[in-house]
Amino acid sequence: MGDFSGILTKEQILVTTEEALRRFGVAKTSVIDVARILNVSHGTIYRHFKSKNELLEGVTEKWLDEKIIKPLTAVCKDTSMEGPQHLQTYLRTLIELKHHYAREDEEMFKMYAKVTDEAADLIYKHVNHITDQMGEIITRSRIKSEEPSRLARTIFYATIRFHHPAHAYEWKSPTIYKEFLDVWTLLEKGFISEK
Amino acid sequence: MGDFSGILTKEQILVTTEEALRRFGVAKTSVIDVARILNVSHGTIYRHFKSKNELLEGVTEKWLDEKIIKPLTAVCKDTSMEGPQHLQTYLRTLIELKHHYAREDEEMFKMYAKVTDEAADLIYKHVNHITDQMGEIITRSRIKSEEPSRLARTIFYATIRFHHPAHAYEWKSPTIYKEFLDVWTLLEKGFISEK
Repeated sequence: MGDFSGILTKEQILVTTEEALRRFGVAKTSVIDVARILNVSHGTIYRHFKSKNELLEGVTEKWLDEKIIKPLTAVCKDTSMEGPQHLQTYLRTLIELKHHYAREDEEMFKMYAKVTDEAADLIYKHVNHITDQMGEIITRSRIKSEEPSRLARTIFYATIRFHHPAHAYEWKSPTIYKEFLDVWTLLEKGFISEK
Repeated sequence: MGDFSGILTKEQILVTTEEALRRFGVAKTSVIDVARILNVSHGTIYRHFKSKNELLEGVTEKWLDEKIIKPLTAVCKDTSMEGPQHLQTYLRTLIELKHHYAREDEEMFKMYAKVTDEAADLIYKHVNHITDQMGEIITRSRIKSEEPSRLARTIFYATIRFHHPAHAYEWKSPTIYKEFLDVWTLLEKGFISEK
């Protein structure tokens, strides 16, 4: 608790909301709870976020940036790798992060899955961020492509079973990683041998 | 309405349940409603289906068999096609059927999407049916594969965005079919040109 009324930033509200969500769950956390913990009036919160939904979106965006985009950016910038191997490592990192948080940070993952269904703009931005980085890797690599960003998006779509939260229930399967590698090999080599 | 008490079959219960679901919606249809329409006691229904859920699964299985598997079987058996073209037509038919029913038979599609989340056995059987037929087409075709059923399953997974009901909200996009063709071309040819 603390008196933030003078200097309260969006960031502080988001950090506090995330704490409240972990403690009480998404359904039971209200804007009033967040205001109470921050020792401000709920009007102060509403000045920054117009509704509980907007607050949840803010937390999800922050969570995606920190937990998914930040480590992915490190992989994207890693110049020790190149070509298909770099792209595969990038995608594998995306998949491993999603599977990890689906297991280990269930409350936040469930919220992210819910927001995916509802906050089209936020998810559009998130997917663009990832496919842009994939496109960068393709451009720098020896993968021949006239349209790197289109190829990036196509690979993203073809692997969606392994990173889209709607498929989280399939990630518990012991063969899921082997199935990703099968898809990856097919994307790399194609199934038509007579070219 | 009619007195079916003597000769009531599972099939008749399922047909009546489907009618009731269309009329009242999934949430508002009870086993008692179905019994009332059939003019039997609800005990008679419970003799065939142990719960409302089992009844819904029965209707979904019937719906999938009639609306999806039946036309797909016709494509699978069509000897006028062969090779990748046959496989693509099969998959395109699967996708077009799913998109069609998501638009035109919303109540039943929503139920099928719900059952997909919950009735693992039913969906496992449905997916096996489809990947078995894809495997058959691969075996008969000039597609070289040492494990046709594994290749079939891998292609099924790589195209899941276009036929899994969790992605139905993405099917409204005007570019969805073009995106499927991009994925298909990638699966056929692969992205590595130097082989």
